[in-house]
Amino acid sequence: MLTYDLEKRGELPRYDYLYRCIKGDILSGRLGPGERLPSKRALAAHLGTAVATVENAYAQLLAEGYLVSRQRAGYYVAQVESRAGGACPAEVGTCGAEAGLWGERRGGEAPPRPWLLDLRGSGGGIEGFPFSVWARLTRRVLSERGPALLRAVPHSGVPELREALARHLYELRGIRARPEQIVVGAGAEYLYNLLVQLLGRERGYGLEDPGYSRAWQVYALNGARCRSLPVDGQGVPPEAFEGTDLQVLHLSPNHQFPTGAVTPIPRRQAMLRWAGAGDRYLIEDDYDSEFRFSGRPIPPLQSIDQGGKVLYLNTFSRTLAPSLRIGYLVLPPALVGRYREKLGFYACTVPAIEQHTLALFLSEGYFESHLNRMRVFYRGRRDRVLEAVQDSPLAGRCRPLREEAGLHFLLELDTDVPDRELARRGEEAGLRLSFLTDYQRREGSAPAHTLVVHYPALAPEGLGRGLEALARLLD
Amino acid sequence: MLTYDLEKRGELPRYDYLYRCIKGDILSGRLGPGERLPSKRALAAHLGTAVATVENAYAQLLAEGYLVSRQRAGYYVAQVESRAGGACPAEVGTCGAEAGLWGERRGGEAPPRPWLLDLRGSGGGIEGFPFSVWARLTRRVLSERGPALLRAVPHSGVPELREALARHLYELRGIRARPEQIVVGAGAEYLYNLLVQLLGRERGYGLEDPGYSRAWQVYALNGARCRSLPVDGQGVPPEAFEGTDLQVLHLSPNHQFPTGAVTPIPRRQAMLRWAGAGDRYLIEDDYDSEFRFSGRPIPPLQSIDQGGKVLYLNTFSRTLAPSLRIGYLVLPPALVGRYREKLGFYACTVPAIEQHTLALFLSEGYFESHLNRMRVFYRGRRDRVLEAVQDSPLAGRCRPLREEAGLHFLLELDTDVPDRELARRGEEAGLRLSFLTDYQRREGSAPAHTLVVHYPALAPEGLGRGLEALARLLD
Repeated sequence: MLTYDLEKRGELPRYDYLYRCIKGDILSGRLGPGERLPSKRALAAHLGTAVATVENAYAQLLAEGYLVSRQRAGYYVAQVESRAGGACPAEVGTCGAEAGLWGERRGGEAPPRPWLLDLRGSGGGIEGFPFSVWARLTRRVLSERGPALLRAVPHSGVPELREALARHLYELRGIRARPEQIVVGAGAEYLYNLLVQLLGRERGYGLEDPGYSRAWQVYALNGARCRSLPVDGQGVPPEAFEGTDLQVLHLSPNHQFPTGAVTPIPRRQAMLRWAGAGDRYLIEDDYDSEFRFSGRPIPPLQSIDQGGKVLYLNTFSRTLAPSLRIGYLVLPPALVGRYREKLGFYACTVPAIEQHTLALFLSEGYFESHLNRMRVFYRGRRDRVLEAVQDSPLAGRCRPLREEAGLHFLLELDTDVPDRELARRGEEAGLRLSFLTDYQRREGSAPAHTLVVHYPALAPEGLGRGLEALARLLD
Repeated sequence: MLTYDLEKRGELPRYDYLYRCIKGDILSGRLGPGERLPSKRALAAHLGTAVATVENAYAQLLAEGYLVSRQRAGYYVAQVESRAGGACPAEVGTCGAEAGLWGERRGGEAPPRPWLLDLRGSGGGIEGFPFSVWARLTRRVLSERGPALLRAVPHSGVPELREALARHLYELRGIRARPEQIVVGAGAEYLYNLLVQLLGRERGYGLEDPGYSRAWQVYALNGARCRSLPVDGQGVPPEAFEGTDLQVLHLSPNHQFPTGAVTPIPRRQAMLRWAGAGDRYLIEDDYDSEFRFSGRPIPPLQSIDQGGKVLYLNTFSRTLAPSLRIGYLVLPPALVGRYREKLGFYACTVPAIEQHTLALFLSEGYFESHLNRMRVFYRGRRDRVLEAVQDSPLAGRCRPLREEAGLHFLLELDTDVPDRELARRGEEAGLRLSFLTDYQRREGSAPAHTLVVHYPALAPEGLGRGLEALARLLD
């Protein structure tokens, strides 16, 4: 007869302990397949416990399939493999408090190295975010909307946010879109997934080279055929896509990433004409058009699209904060139905609280004043960085380019040292450099000796020392 | 000479109005490609405005590519196509306040129809969610963490949440996982995308049939080869995958959706053995195992996996609220590196505020007490529904099945009427029915005449009338 000492059960209920013991014996092979278990009554008497204890233990073993019951014939061990020498679950069950099981906390992600100069630094400008306003609006949403916030959200986002976005897009970007055309999602990369799934992976996708590598990664992970599109000082030339079998172009025509090129209107028209001549689409990635320091913002492709060929994409990662993960698509009216049919089953990935908070932030004018402040802040920071370059030994050995817009500019260096060698030397000297060639997919598609200066996180203090060290690398 | 009446500019700055006028004339064809524009000085004098006004207007037109400048020769209209009869941007620019532009608000999504009986109803139990606790914790996170919440979050989630999840998983599900193995993401469907992208679409994926259609949809949208796996009273039988070229099985072994079958241990071992014999994986979708009303929860496959073959997935949509969009994966240790390499570029899709709030909710014991309360609530609701069935004319004409766990159970009907006909009759009578056959992909893979009763949203009031109407459909 099975014998277990129920006094050793510690804080476990009796039935639970008995269940673990029998399970352990089955897994260790002490109880073999087909073996008949004692009746509940007999085992209860043998162990000096209530019949209900055995009943509950057997019921659980039955539910998990360790035992099978045969009508009126009792309980038998199922065809379970035993683990030779394996730990029995009862043992496993006690080792949770084992020292070190969660000892190496936060491992795996190395702490960021402190750089003398970090041209790839992200963040910066976060300090300018009106966190107290955001927190206040969040509290207001929590108290005004209450438990209604828990209900599932429409797949394309809460109506209040899509309406606020439609107004904002019209006022800031001249984009005319009904709220129904807008799809809210958790950041650009998530939305790239939706775009391929909407348009289909079987199409050929053209992406700018040099370009934003994450877009390429997401398209490729989705199995889309990706092809490089060359980029010159005016963005992508029409020869790159005309007469090819490409069907979708992913473009950043308003401030090409990373070259900063603005695509002039004749090329934009060529793009729209190309798209209009077939089942073709243009994805307009308008990732940082909010920041243009001279003149007016460049009107997006979407605003001159009369054929419903442009899928517009933007996020709040750069204008608000990277941790918020809120982006959106503006679909052409003719694709709204296809989206709903094909992807409408996806639940909206942005929590309701954030959506309502952002809706208030937009509709009550906080976003606009934040943008205005940030333009002044970024322009000032860019000016400080450009001045620091002029005051450094780099002056006369480099030329800033495309510094009139966006959160990065270029710095063309007078040097014969190859970019990779410069990057290696920089790394040794504590400089984290970023070259246009880092963003190319094909060798030679980006000009060499050209730094991409992501300046928002470049604090003016200490910049001089970093630039001095950089100048020393050039010879 | 170009002539525009700057007095008509309304509230626009002069340069902006001038820019719009010239752009309009280029787009309408009044100014043709190659045409030379007057010098800034001449146009300024002609229009009676400052040279700077013209300078700014020209600069913007240049930036957008409507004009080209030739060194010392002046400004020329670029090769821009004109729109015959098209609206000029100046006109477009004034119609934002147009009545009706956003008039049809919240259109596109029809209001839910009020049903006499709705077996597909989602939600329910949301009223049990301790919203005030959640709101309080959110406020605490906002004030304690402040602007640090704006920084980008590690790709797999904030460490505090992954640690809290690791502890929770161990205590509730017997899952031993280091926080490094956990990936937090915006809901199950998003995570399904990550799973295919991690394991590769070129593999054959086996999915339960009948099963959860969204998993199939996401895998198929990712281009994975999907194949149906039959389901019997014990889940998926080994014959369904042994000897096939499948490489990944998507399973809900702890409470198969929608049949409710629990896969017994011998089959689980067969699954693990199969996976262990090749480059194969098991995705364990543990979507509602928290709700088991008799005995202990069924231990997950993950907890007996010694070969690192199980990718465990769960969400908080059913245990907390569908609008929160927080789910997670537990990867086998050997896949953590591959994940980081292949998908680590994805930003985490859950905002930092929600992640910290959930971490507190878990680590301070609120989740556990909430689950305990909800188990009582759901058990009570299930009992009321079963009692109402017994008290209705359906009694004796149906048998409840698999009612011991989960948020739905089955109701086998004594009828010869085909399911589709029943659904049609139901629709007419105000009953929204849900059959096992609704979840099948291949005809005949699910037994007919079996209702799937999603009961959490079934309020006991009025249930009697709905069940009476249902009984009338059976003949």
